[in-house]
Amino acid sequence: MDDTIDAPTHGHLLIVGGSEDRQHGMRVLTRFVELCGGADQPVAVMTAASEIADQVFEMYRVAFAELGVTRISHVHLDSPKEAASEKLLSRLREAKGIFMSGGDQKRLLEMIGGTPVHACIATAFARGACIAGTSAGASAMSRFMLAEGKAELEPEKGAIRLGPGLGFVERIVVDQHFAQRKRLPRLLSIIAERPDLYGIGIDEDTALLISPGKGIEVIGDGAVTLLDGLNMVSNIDLLDTGEVPRLIDVRLHLLPAGTRFDVGAAADGDTRVPPPFQDFFDTLIQSEQPEQPEQREPS
Amino acid sequence: MDDTIDAPTHGHLLIVGGSEDRQHGMRVLTRFVELCGGADQPVAVMTAASEIADQVFEMYRVAFAELGVTRISHVHLDSPKEAASEKLLSRLREAKGIFMSGGDQKRLLEMIGGTPVHACIATAFARGACIAGTSAGASAMSRFMLAEGKAELEPEKGAIRLGPGLGFVERIVVDQHFAQRKRLPRLLSIIAERPDLYGIGIDEDTALLISPGKGIEVIGDGAVTLLDGLNMVSNIDLLDTGEVPRLIDVRLHLLPAGTRFDVGAAADGDTRVPPPFQDFFDTLIQSEQPEQPEQREPS
Repeated sequence: MDDTIDAPTHGHLLIVGGSEDRQHGMRVLTRFVELCGGADQPVAVMTAASEIADQVFEMYRVAFAELGVTRISHVHLDSPKEAASEKLLSRLREAKGIFMSGGDQKRLLEMIGGTPVHACIATAFARGACIAGTSAGASAMSRFMLAEGKAELEPEKGAIRLGPGLGFVERIVVDQHFAQRKRLPRLLSIIAERPDLYGIGIDEDTALLISPGKGIEVIGDGAVTLLDGLNMVSNIDLLDTGEVPRLIDVRLHLLPAGTRFDVGAAADGDTRVPPPFQDFFDTLIQSEQPEQPEQREPS
Repeated sequence: MDDTIDAPTHGHLLIVGGSEDRQHGMRVLTRFVELCGGADQPVAVMTAASEIADQVFEMYRVAFAELGVTRISHVHLDSPKEAASEKLLSRLREAKGIFMSGGDQKRLLEMIGGTPVHACIATAFARGACIAGTSAGASAMSRFMLAEGKAELEPEKGAIRLGPGLGFVERIVVDQHFAQRKRLPRLLSIIAERPDLYGIGIDEDTALLISPGKGIEVIGDGAVTLLDGLNMVSNIDLLDTGEVPRLIDVRLHLLPAGTRFDVGAAADGDTRVPPPFQDFFDTLIQSEQPEQPEQREPS
């Protein structure tokens, strides 16, 4: 079976803010299982962001078992050389949901970025699988990934560095553990450096669900904070590294769990997209085929 | 000497975010002394927000002495009955700067709100004195004061309660220790409940200087965060107490120390008011005479 795309309907993207509940109500994981098509469907847990892969996989195996999922496979790499392994690729091809754990997003990208594993996940998404990522896994899902970021009290020039992510969403940068780790200043640093990108901060035990072409929803316990710097006036280009930028007219949106916006919702319904949010919404749900990732030369 | 207003030029307002440096560079206090007209001018320190008045006064006496200020008086009340005391009123009348300490803003308002002391401070401001407040003293300076506020990870309906403040600025609510105590969710709660008011969060060792009719400046070490909910779309009216509101299109501005905006600045100068900030700026610098506070019936 080759990896060309032939199915018309994308799966969903579930971008999780870390520390999702794995023992009690498990709202985020429950939704993931539904999005996979139910507990009888095969799920792959990718731990390539993590240095403690077996421990992390076991944690998810137990949680998913609690939800009735028994067909669960482990995808892990300790070297990008393993990213052409037929064993791993077949696990990913079979999966109706691929769940990328936390750890370090740079490790995840180093292991799989531009490899057959990466292409395989992109194909699975195009064929209807649910692609989920939590914590570092969440940050990796966009085209633009937060690779380094200082945790300061205020945004600063030079505080963050972006790197290439997996490319499942365009034009956004995702941060996680957002309220709990007080990451608004860092998200402001991101849009201050890249006002062309939208910033998304996801709280713990919270997920942003994107149904391409259809809508978005916030699931779980907390909220999603979104920053739009497209109209922003900033002096960051005049500053030295470490200085705090002056930022005027950042647009901030706060979407608590339960929020849902649908394309084509009734004009007076509460899932109608508020006009000031329309462009952001359109960016999130754009359903053009993500490019197949550039293949990395084998090293 | 009566308290009718006859001087044409307002003094300045210095709204300080708490924990201002009182031992080293003392940037905020140094500016306060300049705004009083110099170290040889009389300063009154009002500790009516505090339960440890003598300790707080001593701390400021020492700090101001370090800056060369020797004509320093202590204004304190343990009951609103003391607010007609000629001794206190004369100290306030004489002062070219009145510095209101931290503590509990409700205590401050209970002691002086609507009393001759309050009227006397308003008169001093109208006659050119610099009125400063730090921490609780800062929150008290507006017409709309944060009286109660839960510190949560996200904004919530019912999390805050406003009460009447001293009225030196209209249409804003001030919070302090802003970055250090992670108070953005609380400031969002404030504008969610009152989208007609602007929210201002001031970091520690940072001050917002308002020169009525002229301009604003940010002094000290941190930054001032401003929230504008005038265009905001919110569902808070549909919620129960404790629920997190959905907020769309909050405008956020971040002004670091060193920021300065002047009325009538050169169109290409860096103290020109950025157009998206114009209405907020105009609100801050409006120089209409604040109403003389309503007089409280003597109890």
